[in-house]
Amino acid sequence: MRKACVALLYLALIGCGGGDKVAPADGEQSQQRFEWKLVTSWPKNFPGLGLAPEHFAEAVERMSNGRLKIKVYGAGQLVPALEVFDAVSQGTAEVGHSGAYYWKGKIPASPFFGAVPFGLNAQEMNAWLHYGGGLELWRELYEPFNLVPFAGGNTGVQMAGWFNREINSIADIKGLKMRIPGLGGEVFTRAGGISVNLPGGELYTSMQTGVIDATEWVGPYNDLAFGFYQVAKYYYYPGWHEPGPALELIVNKQALEALPDDLQAIVETAARAINQDMLDEYTARNNAALVELVEKHGVQVRKLPDDVLAEFQRLSADVIAELAAEDPLTKRIADSMRAFAAQSSAYHGISEEAYYNARGK
Amino acid sequence: MRKACVALLYLALIGCGGGDKVAPADGEQSQQRFEWKLVTSWPKNFPGLGLAPEHFAEAVERMSNGRLKIKVYGAGQLVPALEVFDAVSQGTAEVGHSGAYYWKGKIPASPFFGAVPFGLNAQEMNAWLHYGGGLELWRELYEPFNLVPFAGGNTGVQMAGWFNREINSIADIKGLKMRIPGLGGEVFTRAGGISVNLPGGELYTSMQTGVIDATEWVGPYNDLAFGFYQVAKYYYYPGWHEPGPALELIVNKQALEALPDDLQAIVETAARAINQDMLDEYTARNNAALVELVEKHGVQVRKLPDDVLAEFQRLSADVIAELAAEDPLTKRIADSMRAFAAQSSAYHGISEEAYYNARGK
Repeated sequence: MRKACVALLYLALIGCGGGDKVAPADGEQSQQRFEWKLVTSWPKNFPGLGLAPEHFAEAVERMSNGRLKIKVYGAGQLVPALEVFDAVSQGTAEVGHSGAYYWKGKIPASPFFGAVPFGLNAQEMNAWLHYGGGLELWRELYEPFNLVPFAGGNTGVQMAGWFNREINSIADIKGLKMRIPGLGGEVFTRAGGISVNLPGGELYTSMQTGVIDATEWVGPYNDLAFGFYQVAKYYYYPGWHEPGPALELIVNKQALEALPDDLQAIVETAARAINQDMLDEYTARNNAALVELVEKHGVQVRKLPDDVLAEFQRLSADVIAELAAEDPLTKRIADSMRAFAAQSSAYHGISEEAYYNARGK
Repeated sequence: MRKACVALLYLALIGCGGGDKVAPADGEQSQQRFEWKLVTSWPKNFPGLGLAPEHFAEAVERMSNGRLKIKVYGAGQLVPALEVFDAVSQGTAEVGHSGAYYWKGKIPASPFFGAVPFGLNAQEMNAWLHYGGGLELWRELYEPFNLVPFAGGNTGVQMAGWFNREINSIADIKGLKMRIPGLGGEVFTRAGGISVNLPGGELYTSMQTGVIDATEWVGPYNDLAFGFYQVAKYYYYPGWHEPGPALELIVNKQALEALPDDLQAIVETAARAINQDMLDEYTARNNAALVELVEKHGVQVRKLPDDVLAEFQRLSADVIAELAAEDPLTKRIADSMRAFAAQSSAYHGISEEAYYNARGK
């Protein structure tokens, strides 16, 4: 009976001239359904970072009335955390949520779309990406990998990290063993420290047993949950190495292009919405977590001395200049970001920064 | 012939059991079409503020494949700029884009959802609205007016304004005639100034003819276009009176509820996306406009003296405390924002603010 009805419906459509079109008319909807896999570099539902892909999937499913369903896989459930890029590039999954700096080994310029030391903060990063040419450069960078990147969230300025030795001058960095990966780690090494890379799950024990003297992680919201206050004496700021870390939402190019235009628009707009949502969440929860760390757990919050920050900034400029020399596209990206940073730094000096300073009086 | 086909199609659907349902099945789309009017308080396509409603309408139309079409009217095209609230409340238009502080005459608490002097900056405002209980309070506040509000953009910290008299101490505020509306104007008056309210279109001539000594407007991006550099000597910062002005997208409650759930989700997500987009645009364009103002037009940028800012901050606290005493809901809103501000101020002191300061060295 059901089959006969579908046939009747089909005939009715054909009879009305609806059968010779592939694309639906304006105001009508393709009823084609899609099911996507979304792989991430975070444990399932990891606070902050791991909620963004869930929110993305929910928004897309609701807006598409279920025509595009997205199943979210935590790190290791379908592919390991650091194989998200390859999995989406190859089409094992249609979409991924991760951080661009993880791909530095294969794409030298990728940290510019994650975080570079003494680079843009969250507000500036979003402005550069969406109104400063950044996103176009990112698309060009990922094009050979069959990927279309979108900004996928931002944590805001991170903390400098948890330390078991006091930092009173740049001399105290010498020989300090710290978990600090990426370009920040390179800067730290040049300043005389010993940078190591360890996965998040090993940090607590490594601090507890003295395998490392210090570790950076994210900020109060995530750090509180990890319990670092139990194994570290000091909580240093500001997060010079990751001032506005952007996450990425990467989509397989063929998968995106196979969608009708309305679903493509739904994917783009949902990405934009979760990009802001993550920063909103971190901003709100970091506040509350910091209060708990200080008032309940007696955490000692310290500022990195000016000479240490100045030396890190000097070395960061060197590291970025060397990175920019790797290839022409990396240079174009570095130049674009530096030009934007010079202006935004000047403007924010008399707007956001000046306001923070005025308010603090 | 066409009519017969529709009848046949209808019979086919009825015969297949599709006729007794109101909501479409999961994965299918209601084909019902909607046409909305969007009224704004800005001239059509006004840079920054006026582009947000256009972007909203485009995103909704594309995501809905034309099932929800939104026609944007500039200020005065359908209703005057300051009748947007009433027009959407009464259903003359289904949606509006404006600023909450415009409704202070009828809703004392409305400035908390626009801007209050020495209040939250853009990042904090978005965090309070979406993860600090702000949006729920805003919905409660607008419920009696048949309106559902959404955050509809943010300009970031504005400039303190254009001045034809130099401000060296709080004594220089005495007798100064400045266009500065709203709570900022009230603070300015208490500091000894004379605050006046004039529409944007009269500001240039009023400055030129000396009717006013100073005017605030927005920031470099909008101010450059208005040509204030031709009629004012000094450009002062920071914008203590509007540190993170939020715009609003207000939707008529019945119109929103009449939409199927997928279109409601499309409206919500598009609002969230344009909310971020406006800040991105201002952040990028303010930078470039400031450079042009200084380098091409020789604008003298000055910081308001510390004693002036301190006095404005003291008076702002008084003004807000008095406002909070107006009614119980206004008090709940003021308390919520103040509690959030206390925490975000502490956290941003060691994150965003500390980073800006470190980077500037």
